Amino acid sequence: MDEERVSRCREAMREAGIGLLVCRLPENMTLLAGYYPLTGMNFLALPSEGEPSLLVPESEEKEASAGWWEQVRTFSFGRVDSPDPSVAVEQFLTDVRERRIAEGAAVGFEGSFESVAPALLAGESSLPALPYFDLLKKVFGASVRDATDFIMAQRATKTRVELEKMRVASRVAACGLSAFRHAVEPGRTEAEIAGIVAAAVMRDGVRVTGAERILPFPQVSSGPEHTSVAWRPCVISSDRTIREGDLVVLELGVVVNGFWADNTRTFTAGQETPRQKEIREVVETAQREACAALAPGVRCSDVDRAARCVIEEAGLGEYFIHVTGHGIGTRYHEPVPILSPGNDAALETGMVCSVEPGVYIPGFGGFRKEDILAVAEEGSENLTACGQGAGASDDDESCSA
Amino acid sequence: MDEERVSRCREAMREAGIGLLVCRLPENMTLLAGYYPLTGMNFLALPSEGEPSLLVPESEEKEASAGWWEQVRTFSFGRVDSPDPSVAVEQFLTDVRERRIAEGAAVGFEGSFESVAPALLAGESSLPALPYFDLLKKVFGASVRDATDFIMAQRATKTRVELEKMRVASRVAACGLSAFRHAVEPGRTEAEIAGIVAAAVMRDGVRVTGAERILPFPQVSSGPEHTSVAWRPCVISSDRTIREGDLVVLELGVVVNGFWADNTRTFTAGQETPRQKEIREVVETAQREACAALAPGVRCSDVDRAARCVIEEAGLGEYFIHVTGHGIGTRYHEPVPILSPGNDAALETGMVCSVEPGVYIPGFGGFRKEDILAVAEEGSENLTACGQGAGASDDDESCSA
Repeated sequence: MDEERVSRCREAMREAGIGLLVCRLPENMTLLAGYYPLTGMNFLALPSEGEPSLLVPESEEKEASAGWWEQVRTFSFGRVDSPDPSVAVEQFLTDVRERRIAEGAAVGFEGSFESVAPALLAGESSLPALPYFDLLKKVFGASVRDATDFIMAQRATKTRVELEKMRVASRVAACGLSAFRHAVEPGRTEAEIAGIVAAAVMRDGVRVTGAERILPFPQVSSGPEHTSVAWRPCVISSDRTIREGDLVVLELGVVVNGFWADNTRTFTAGQETPRQKEIREVVETAQREACAALAPGVRCSDVDRAARCVIEEAGLGEYFIHVTGHGIGTRYHEPVPILSPGNDAALETGMVCSVEPGVYIPGFGGFRKEDILAVAEEGSENLTACGQGAGASDDDESCSA
Repeated sequence: MDEERVSRCREAMREAGIGLLVCRLPENMTLLAGYYPLTGMNFLALPSEGEPSLLVPESEEKEASAGWWEQVRTFSFGRVDSPDPSVAVEQFLTDVRERRIAEGAAVGFEGSFESVAPALLAGESSLPALPYFDLLKKVFGASVRDATDFIMAQRATKTRVELEKMRVASRVAACGLSAFRHAVEPGRTEAEIAGIVAAAVMRDGVRVTGAERILPFPQVSSGPEHTSVAWRPCVISSDRTIREGDLVVLELGVVVNGFWADNTRTFTAGQETPRQKEIREVVETAQREACAALAPGVRCSDVDRAARCVIEEAGLGEYFIHVTGHGIGTRYHEPVPILSPGNDAALETGMVCSVEPGVYIPGFGGFRKEDILAVAEEGSENLTACGQGAGASDDDESCSA
């Protein structure tokens, strides 16, 4: 059990006047129940003091019981005679209502999560909608409070246990990065390369780390047109065949037991042109500079500046259109920290973020490099670099930060 | 444009007193805007008469414009200076408010979708939560109406255009089924086989069908213990190594341009024992009987009975614990039709469902076979069987229905 996470959260609950936190989203179950849900039909009632309770489908009892909490109630699910689960959910919430420490204490819930991490059943996660929100109001009355900001504030800095889980996710992702490096060859399609990366993550990820709940989300783009939109959040791995001299960009999200890695690599298929080499060196330098700037107390905007300066000095500023980095943890993208020009908030030890400068030049293509870094006691730790060397093919270069 | 879908929906809207339908879920955008969203930040305002409007991130303008509707408004997204998109969303909703045909007509929205299909960015879909529901109330006032049941009723039967898209999804999935058949060998891990299937779906699926927005969700279990829980909605592809004589079960969900296929295959690694052969023949017969029973006018419970009888007569009834089939379309699992003992509703031409009897015997393991079938004018069409023969390796057996 991650004592640091639980005691930190409970202390914050008491300070915020939250007597009970009701969680259901996979990303928060991972955080506060200590396991990655399979379906999204898992519920945690965490009081600021006393024993938490879980309600899970009977088919996830084993996984839930291997998490942190002893009180695991189940409901019938997936059987021919399974009743409507909402009855069990209402009964569960009613039963835990009394756990609020004091009259007047609030019941926090996940109201405003519009970007969400999937359960392991990523093809069809079960997530809150109006009936669930209405049920919370019905059971808890006026005491319900949207605790989205509260929860995200807890997630802003990772505990020691969580950092270790983030390292594992990055080690798994590194298996995909290695496979990508070797797969970039003229003649293959983008979709084929994406498939090779996915297969490597699944096969080698389990083998290298022993972590079994792994999902890969690779996106491959190639050539001048496709890579020049590689900045958008979702890139289509098409049937375009890679040609000699093409830039090929991999955006790779990986979730491992509920914790995420997020990486980008760009390679040239075959011989690199002088212009490609020039662009690559600019972006790699920018990425290295931003990595080197990452440290506790440093402003997010200064890390962004470290990368942006390099790219602007090379005359490519107009092509670096997005932020330098974003938070990450139990979701692919988290709101703290954002490494952007406007954000003067200071970095703190335990924050984890991407560092991913990129340029996207119409007619030429896009080039991005992305690693995951943790803000350390001093400086930073590159989780992606740690992962490299642990995989099946360990010859990837490391970020020198 | 799918005239049948649009005119059918609009007629139903007029009958139901819905003047405007506001959609955002990827599964409903696929249905009513004619494209599969990349992120889930896409919004459709479909009036019962007159031109619909779309609001999409600028990075998805190309995809949205290739859909059915001309009025595509965009908002800045993913750029360093992109403002909060909720401003653009509120402006869009306010602008379309006047499109309601008559005062008193309702504005339908997606209130109660708790199981949801992901966008192509399945690692982090954007989905409705309280702020969006509150915004709808703010803009449309008392006229908002939860149209979840209305929309699901529209989805219960597929149009001719949709059936063709479902066939494509099944053809793509068939590439994974072929790969699985060849990958089941002693010495491989479950995770490795899942990776092989994922790679085949991505590589061959694009090649065979030309459809580029493809995501595979394979789940592999093996051996007596793991396959005996293969009935649960989410199975973990572990690092267990397949041994000679193991049952190996693949559950494979595949989404192709927003339309789903859902298949299961079970094979023995190496030599089949007499008991395994006996179980296989029972389940295959049950599956064939249920497929053969599927026809318009037939009760769902009778199709279930066709499968269940065979399994009960073999003395295995207690091990067939789930329903015989479920609806499918723009989501992995849809509520119409459910082929279950208690459901006496009649099947209709255009309904699409899985047929998937299975038995799960403690100490022995699980065996399931699952195809996707459409209820035809007479009898049914096995979409999975159509897909086989189109793939890279076309030697899979077909359901004989």
